[in-house]
Amino acid sequence: MGGDHAPHNVVTGVLDALRESGGRLSVLLVGQEERIHAEFAKAGTGGKRAGMVGCTVVNATEVVDMHDAPNAALKAKKDSSITVGIKLHQEAKADAFVSAGNTGAVLSASTLILGRIKGVGRPTIGALIPTETTPCMLVDAGTNVDCKPRHLFEFAVMGSIYVSSMIGKSNPSVGLLSIGEEEIKGNEVTLEAFALLKKSSLNFVGNVEGRDILKGMVDVAVCDGFVGNILLKFGESVPGFLKAKLMEFAESGFWNKLRVWVAQGGLRAVMKNLDYQEYGGVPLLGVNGVSIIGHGGSTPKAIKNMIFRAEEMVRRKVHLQIQEAMVRHT
Amino acid sequence: MGGDHAPHNVVTGVLDALRESGGRLSVLLVGQEERIHAEFAKAGTGGKRAGMVGCTVVNATEVVDMHDAPNAALKAKKDSSITVGIKLHQEAKADAFVSAGNTGAVLSASTLILGRIKGVGRPTIGALIPTETTPCMLVDAGTNVDCKPRHLFEFAVMGSIYVSSMIGKSNPSVGLLSIGEEEIKGNEVTLEAFALLKKSSLNFVGNVEGRDILKGMVDVAVCDGFVGNILLKFGESVPGFLKAKLMEFAESGFWNKLRVWVAQGGLRAVMKNLDYQEYGGVPLLGVNGVSIIGHGGSTPKAIKNMIFRAEEMVRRKVHLQIQEAMVRHT
Repeated sequence: MGGDHAPHNVVTGVLDALRESGGRLSVLLVGQEERIHAEFAKAGTGGKRAGMVGCTVVNATEVVDMHDAPNAALKAKKDSSITVGIKLHQEAKADAFVSAGNTGAVLSASTLILGRIKGVGRPTIGALIPTETTPCMLVDAGTNVDCKPRHLFEFAVMGSIYVSSMIGKSNPSVGLLSIGEEEIKGNEVTLEAFALLKKSSLNFVGNVEGRDILKGMVDVAVCDGFVGNILLKFGESVPGFLKAKLMEFAESGFWNKLRVWVAQGGLRAVMKNLDYQEYGGVPLLGVNGVSIIGHGGSTPKAIKNMIFRAEEMVRRKVHLQIQEAMVRHT
Repeated sequence: MGGDHAPHNVVTGVLDALRESGGRLSVLLVGQEERIHAEFAKAGTGGKRAGMVGCTVVNATEVVDMHDAPNAALKAKKDSSITVGIKLHQEAKADAFVSAGNTGAVLSASTLILGRIKGVGRPTIGALIPTETTPCMLVDAGTNVDCKPRHLFEFAVMGSIYVSSMIGKSNPSVGLLSIGEEEIKGNEVTLEAFALLKKSSLNFVGNVEGRDILKGMVDVAVCDGFVGNILLKFGESVPGFLKAKLMEFAESGFWNKLRVWVAQGGLRAVMKNLDYQEYGGVPLLGVNGVSIIGHGGSTPKAIKNMIFRAEEMVRRKVHLQIQEAMVRHT
């Protein structure tokens, strides 16, 4: 039931995932069953019901709204699709949980029901950002707003595991996002976090600046969720800005219009690099399980990618690797 | 003596400014006089000495390096171009001070020598960012890393004065940079700052998100210098990233290469929007005087623009307006 276009986009994305996976996957669709079945009726499954394409519909009568206050909503709506779905994962009836619903609610319910990994004070979400080289994981991407140095350190550990496991980069480089390269540059929290990172066995390369991310200078960029959220949303707005400026340029004369028209294919391809949707959701790291949170506006494609990402996280046992890493680093 | 290409870029920029100003301006060039005169000899002034084109060279024997620790350097180098130059302004022998030197040193010396405006706890630098509509002032742009709510409030007051005075926007809208529009979203500091801004007479529109800046949703976006610095440097790196991705695209086939080639004029024009250099330095707000700090890599054009900006700030009496505003808001 999650996301701005639920259940339509979710059902469509799930069907696409099942089709592409060739029988490898089965999906439990959790939510108001009538609405889900209705969606199936229009979704072009050739009249097939959910069960016939690898789906099981699990009824959950309540819906946490995108604008609900997370904790209050979870308390008031015990039979929400979020709570029911995560419980299925906790009871090992599902290998992973995926949602495009209320981010805060998914986060709270995952943390509460699955439990935090030992040594993790704050579970975190990390976002993969395209760069000039390989993607960089920005962690925390918006969950933990006021952080202690220890939390930033945990983000670094979890981000490193994710990148090495899922991107296949061994011993990923970790940078601490700050306002200068020198060790003495930073705010109160990052200065202390620097010391923790420096004495750890992580591949810590020191401070990195805002300009280093897109250059691909590090595999993991660590920051608090306040900075991470603002940076990610700023990045998301760049394509719209460039488009507006290009339109202005096109309006400035016939030849310029022609130029922009000729160029637009390339531009669209490049802009796609900045479209985080393509990457399909962000993983919640630090809980005892696999939980992926999607954008409220997730397209069917994003939903599909989230499912494949969850599958891979299960296969690579990312959360078990984090458990081991937290033991090593404590 | 300030900047990575001093004194060459400074002298060239000054000469350009004098040429364009048509006798309106006179400039005191502060630094090691021999090196400055040597620069004049090669700078194509047709053999004219400094004095003949509206320049006075003021000797200052020492140079604060770009990598010097600001306060230690100012203490050790009493006869630096920064200290001598700002003293000239304080003694009313100059109407303003402009430098592309060590940012921290210019900041410290300006604050120390000119003094803070009454009611200003933390002088700040603000950066004008191009948007889809009119420029937005991001304040603080990197000076004050750990801020109290009151400091963010002061930034809002000073940013509003700057934008209304220099951009000519009356009653500029002020947004508090945060992680969600709702009043309850933010970190500990911004939540308190929100309350201060809300009850003030500023045109406060509430929280804005990272994605709202380039859309031009507000005239002044308030944040601490840690966030401001990271965001600005991230923005500066976008053109390089897009260029790299476009080159990749061009390499992917003849027609794509042709497309990029045809488009590049437009792209360059658009990228220029993201080139903060064009804007020529950032003003230091909250001191009793006019002090403008340039990028270390300032081009002659940036130096020239800094001089014109300083001239305009003097003409519009921005620092006196801030003095009045601080009285009104306290």
